[in-house]
Amino acid sequence: MISEIKSEFPENTDFSKLIKEYGDELGILQREARDLEIPLVIVFEGWYDVFIGEIINRQLLPLDSRGFDFHFTNAPTSEENKIPFIFRFSRKIPPKGKIAVFDRSWYMRGLIEHLLNESEKFGCANLTYKTNLEAILTEPANEEVIHTPKFARLIKTINDFESTLYNNGTRFVKIYLGARKEKRIESHKLWKKIIPYDIDKRSTEKIYKKDVRVLKEVLEQTNTEYAPWNLYFVNQDIDEATATTMKIIIDQIKQIIFDVKSSRFLEQEKTDYCEISENTCPEVPLMKGPLDEVDLTKCYSKEEYKKKLKKNQKKLAFSHYSLYLNKKPMVLVFEGWDAAGKGGSIKRIVQSMNPRYYRVIPIGSPTDVDKKYHYLWRFLDGIPPCGKTSLFDRSWYGRVMVERIEHFCTEEEWQRAYDEIKHFEKAMTDNGVIVIKFWMHISKEKQYERFTARSLNPLKQWKLTEEDWRNREKWNEYYNAVNEMIEKTSTEKAPWVIVEADDKYYARIKVLKTIVKRIEEELNDEMEELDFPISSD
Amino acid sequence: MISEIKSEFPENTDFSKLIKEYGDELGILQREARDLEIPLVIVFEGWYDVFIGEIINRQLLPLDSRGFDFHFTNAPTSEENKIPFIFRFSRKIPPKGKIAVFDRSWYMRGLIEHLLNESEKFGCANLTYKTNLEAILTEPANEEVIHTPKFARLIKTINDFESTLYNNGTRFVKIYLGARKEKRIESHKLWKKIIPYDIDKRSTEKIYKKDVRVLKEVLEQTNTEYAPWNLYFVNQDIDEATATTMKIIIDQIKQIIFDVKSSRFLEQEKTDYCEISENTCPEVPLMKGPLDEVDLTKCYSKEEYKKKLKKNQKKLAFSHYSLYLNKKPMVLVFEGWDAAGKGGSIKRIVQSMNPRYYRVIPIGSPTDVDKKYHYLWRFLDGIPPCGKTSLFDRSWYGRVMVERIEHFCTEEEWQRAYDEIKHFEKAMTDNGVIVIKFWMHISKEKQYERFTARSLNPLKQWKLTEEDWRNREKWNEYYNAVNEMIEKTSTEKAPWVIVEADDKYYARIKVLKTIVKRIEEELNDEMEELDFPISSD
Repeated sequence: MISEIKSEFPENTDFSKLIKEYGDELGILQREARDLEIPLVIVFEGWYDVFIGEIINRQLLPLDSRGFDFHFTNAPTSEENKIPFIFRFSRKIPPKGKIAVFDRSWYMRGLIEHLLNESEKFGCANLTYKTNLEAILTEPANEEVIHTPKFARLIKTINDFESTLYNNGTRFVKIYLGARKEKRIESHKLWKKIIPYDIDKRSTEKIYKKDVRVLKEVLEQTNTEYAPWNLYFVNQDIDEATATTMKIIIDQIKQIIFDVKSSRFLEQEKTDYCEISENTCPEVPLMKGPLDEVDLTKCYSKEEYKKKLKKNQKKLAFSHYSLYLNKKPMVLVFEGWDAAGKGGSIKRIVQSMNPRYYRVIPIGSPTDVDKKYHYLWRFLDGIPPCGKTSLFDRSWYGRVMVERIEHFCTEEEWQRAYDEIKHFEKAMTDNGVIVIKFWMHISKEKQYERFTARSLNPLKQWKLTEEDWRNREKWNEYYNAVNEMIEKTSTEKAPWVIVEADDKYYARIKVLKTIVKRIEEELNDEMEELDFPISSD
Repeated sequence: MISEIKSEFPENTDFSKLIKEYGDELGILQREARDLEIPLVIVFEGWYDVFIGEIINRQLLPLDSRGFDFHFTNAPTSEENKIPFIFRFSRKIPPKGKIAVFDRSWYMRGLIEHLLNESEKFGCANLTYKTNLEAILTEPANEEVIHTPKFARLIKTINDFESTLYNNGTRFVKIYLGARKEKRIESHKLWKKIIPYDIDKRSTEKIYKKDVRVLKEVLEQTNTEYAPWNLYFVNQDIDEATATTMKIIIDQIKQIIFDVKSSRFLEQEKTDYCEISENTCPEVPLMKGPLDEVDLTKCYSKEEYKKKLKKNQKKLAFSHYSLYLNKKPMVLVFEGWDAAGKGGSIKRIVQSMNPRYYRVIPIGSPTDVDKKYHYLWRFLDGIPPCGKTSLFDRSWYGRVMVERIEHFCTEEEWQRAYDEIKHFEKAMTDNGVIVIKFWMHISKEKQYERFTARSLNPLKQWKLTEEDWRNREKWNEYYNAVNEMIEKTSTEKAPWVIVEADDKYYARIKVLKTIVKRIEEELNDEMEELDFPISSD
């Protein structure tokens, strides 16, 4: 149950004085949150007649402009409309020490784009508030909306989104500003003056009825322990409403700061008392897993390879162009041992693609800016819009490999990451993105052979770094981590494909074939029968 | 005169072998350019029948995907269409050590958006290639296009853009792929197969005729010493064309690398031989300038202030909303002495604005990522789209103040910045952005008074840093730099307004009044006569 917040100010409160005092207090809290490096999200949701804009402006004003960003959430822009729903909000989540204020958010947009809109297809939701309002008025009441799978999926998307952020440090203050029925009728005249739509009283009531049923359910189901809702019914008095919401924000930020400080204090104590047990065994034992099954003897002769390459590249050229025509986005993830041939495979793939429709995204160490966000943030920019393909040369799986092994994150963090990554990929596949993840697998002996060859070839020396040799020393640790990663994150819609890569020829053909097959399955009979050259201006 | 590049390969050249060799060579050069931290831009321009996509794909392939970004330039997206023309390209200029390849660029888009389109207004150019092609076919020939002011302005915009980038380290390789008349006719059949437009041979010829006249002039006028054109007429043989363009790129990158190395070597020698003469005088003498004229005794009583504040905020609320309705963007720059009241003025301004239509952009030290780009890059994201206002709390003028005084850039660099900044602002004002720059001026005594007051007020202590005291020691140097800055960068469309700020009341009212007046002038009779509350949901 969501508890309702009541104004408890004495009758003759001097609100303008109070708001100033609260403003100073907020300023202090904001600076404290900044120093503690807490990313803070303040969400305002509410229907049309509660003066959210006005209330926010009064609260933002006292704050230091360096500390917050304001996001007014309206219909998606044409670019936003080409990426999975939740990602346009992920991009706006603040870095450490910053506050982002959302004037409407994933809640209102989720409702409008996923529930009121018939089509579930990618890129269909380019509606404005205006047309939506009309849709609500004219559409027959669908009281059962809250029992649809769509609804359940929306709630899950939102809860996964918030829990991933929470677990990685983001804190939420969520405020729903409602208006009571009687107040709504009172405010009707005022409202008519302000909003540009021609709506009569009866319609207002109609919206309200639908509104409450669905919204109540949304609020209940997203009222989590880590991101609870604050429900406040706004009176006509904007000063009172402003003071009350400021009080909510102040109280919650205080609590957040207190909790963060306590947990850091406890962590500190833990580290003080327990010594980190660094594993100093020369050799970590290998654990069983999918990698054990791999037959690394598979190979092709040069002639076979040439023939198959030509054939499969042609097929890929055709099917990739079909993807473009069908506006399907695709994400190809390449992970694998150093010198396993990721680059070579990527090269053979993109040879069949028009550069206008693909991007290769090499992932290195995070920059200083990246480090201010949660670990998935830096990949958002690479998520392809409709019809485009992104090839990730290394990826978010670094979290459960190098970051795990080099202790760049805690065990709790990388353990949690398996689920977080699955949610992240589900947000893609739910929105029509094709996801394939390749693990390029070679034997330890083959790696040695290739390292040596690289070190002797002046054209390839640059590919080999000291880090490669260091990583090689941790072969067994990586082996175990990869086994666990593949077991825990391979899903039907976003499967891992282990590529036998001791023979480069075999590996490249397998990768090509896998992609072609998957595209064909996805496009199925949608696939347009086209017959013209692939690359053109 | 642009020199034409000819293929000089012997008749029986094995192009596929040659292309592979060139690829290796390009790879080496790319890594060298990366190590030298050169941002490199490769521009491909050409008409429709020269297989640019195909040629680029063959050249990109051998390169390390970590080193380059590919940009296919088509009609602007809805967001790009809301910002000044050249800025959507500025955003894509690569950081240090990276290569950006443009498949068509500001040239083709400039022609299409500025010359073929009648309307010059902001945000009007959302045309696709398809409709443009039709426009060219149906529109009567306007042979005089190259003598219009529009044409001259476009050329100037492009040349300013490239020279600013060049001076700040970016290097260009520009390739124009043409097709000769006879080849065009030959290629006509092939072309018809590829492009989705139904065009007959006569039309092709018509396009070509217009094309050459205007394009020739564009190429001539943008064929600068620092960014020369390479003109190559493509034969039917794509392999030959690929090899030739690769050769052009290789030769030019070699030259670029040689030049960069030599100039860095010379610089090194200079620093080795001349000691930097650090000015150790305790007091730099004050130089004459506009700041001397300022009457800092101007003030208002509290009563006057309250009345005027209310009146002018109301006016601003009204006119700012009109700006939004008229889709006019506005940039307000706030510079001034520490404790001169920038924050207080900004606060009084945004109190009258709907947070949906403004952003306050505080400028601090550049991040590591910022530092990889030229110094104006980090401000691009803050340039407001149509109808929005950005308030910059400090700005690009740091280049000619703190960066100059603290020697973060060379004298040559900050001297050059005056013009570069004027070009940057002109790109805005040319596209309808209102630009006002405020210098908040106080006396040295007043600053001391305020610093002391701040240090005693627990709510304001955070505003005062050690750096503020250090900057104060350099008062005279700043005084001279500001005088020079105001004299050199105040333009009719982007004027500096010196605000007498010893009295905060007077300062705030002056800022408000200036903005209101400017908006009224700009909107003039366009201004819609509206009468309803400003802030609404």
